[in-house]
Amino acid sequence: MRKILITNDDGVKSKGISQLIDMMRPYGEIIVVAPFEAQSGMSAALTIGKPLRLTELRSDVGLKVYACSGTPADCVKMAMNQIFVGKLPDLLVSGINHGSNASIASLYSGTLGATAEGTVYGIPSIGLSICSHNPDADLTGVVVYGKKIIDYFFKNPFKSDTFLNVNFPNIKPEEIKGIKFAHQGKGQWIKEFVQREDPYGFKYYWMTGEFFNLEPDNDSSDNNVVEAGYVSIVPHKIDTTDYDELKRLESIWKL
Amino acid sequence: MRKILITNDDGVKSKGISQLIDMMRPYGEIIVVAPFEAQSGMSAALTIGKPLRLTELRSDVGLKVYACSGTPADCVKMAMNQIFVGKLPDLLVSGINHGSNASIASLYSGTLGATAEGTVYGIPSIGLSICSHNPDADLTGVVVYGKKIIDYFFKNPFKSDTFLNVNFPNIKPEEIKGIKFAHQGKGQWIKEFVQREDPYGFKYYWMTGEFFNLEPDNDSSDNNVVEAGYVSIVPHKIDTTDYDELKRLESIWKL
Repeated sequence: MRKILITNDDGVKSKGISQLIDMMRPYGEIIVVAPFEAQSGMSAALTIGKPLRLTELRSDVGLKVYACSGTPADCVKMAMNQIFVGKLPDLLVSGINHGSNASIASLYSGTLGATAEGTVYGIPSIGLSICSHNPDADLTGVVVYGKKIIDYFFKNPFKSDTFLNVNFPNIKPEEIKGIKFAHQGKGQWIKEFVQREDPYGFKYYWMTGEFFNLEPDNDSSDNNVVEAGYVSIVPHKIDTTDYDELKRLESIWKL
Repeated sequence: MRKILITNDDGVKSKGISQLIDMMRPYGEIIVVAPFEAQSGMSAALTIGKPLRLTELRSDVGLKVYACSGTPADCVKMAMNQIFVGKLPDLLVSGINHGSNASIASLYSGTLGATAEGTVYGIPSIGLSICSHNPDADLTGVVVYGKKIIDYFFKNPFKSDTFLNVNFPNIKPEEIKGIKFAHQGKGQWIKEFVQREDPYGFKYYWMTGEFFNLEPDNDSSDNNVVEAGYVSIVPHKIDTTDYDELKRLESIWKL
């Protein structure tokens, strides 16, 4: 029987993780270790200098659910050190995230921080995200197309040292045009803070921002592929060395 | 006059950032935006859903120092939105971090979360770390060899979309054998938690761990290069797409 580890960054009570559990149950035994509270934008952050808690919430045949007080990456470490202990799950799935993790969002994503941590452990890891921040978003399309992707994986696994970042357009399943491989799009956030003043006259700032797409139209970047109505799949590397630039600098810096 | 943005993850009061400021002053005008408190292991995490503060601590000719209540990546965003506003600094330097950021530590590093954020903005960004967690570590060697690297950069800049992760062995300058380019070493932490019991009988966990080097001896990984007494330089990419695996999967998954 396959063992599947599930986590997310929106917290153990989110609709996304609840739908993901239902979607994954036919594939094997499910072990959930997810944050107590929302941990969006936590990247691969770890909790250092503060103690962590791990609480069992549910234990049924085929489904165990734990909540962890830390970040998504903490959840994976906790699962591997306290629950799996020396054995690897057959698959880690993180999500379903409420919000796009395409383009540069992949850098900040807690959903993908968890898949990166899974990959460090040698677990095949997939992150699923819908391009809507609505906590009650319709996830029917994610489930239909997500299962197709899980089936592809079990037939032909991707290589270790790589995890998949899958983004779904926020449209009905019958409107989704298909699935496409893509590369991480170039983009950044702009106008990132809203300034306020507290009752004592001091300024403070809320992070907000607008996404600014730096990829040309109609290219094969994840953001553009999703905008065009397709599900995008980007394989991401754990080894982020820029080997081309390494060679170039080696030849001109002459250390 | 060059403008140089400095940040770190050990906080604005650490010895590492204070030595970095002294090291960089001859190169131009220094603007520091660093976390109020230690933010180790924060990766590229952002502060979402909590307001941020920005406080000016010092304003001299050639040196301004601000503290920000958020993460290292928040500090860079704050600098770009509230201080530089539309102009880019000539260089961002993050550190000097107290602790190695070689191998897989680069994934979790707040020091490098800041350089990644700088790179997203198009700022040439360099992270400097010494392989010692001693908050009073001797940084003489970092300053001597760090200046050499800054000089190389101003003569022949590295390309945008890439930042440098520089790690220094914890030895005296005269014992350092030189500087070497390297790739991100393969490795992971093991035995990551120490379990305790609170006075009410409930368990809690402290993150600790031992680094497990998965690279063969004498290869050109950053961790091995530093262990051999050299300063290591790894160029890291912001686009972490695995293009080889993308091609391979495209040909076998037939979406």
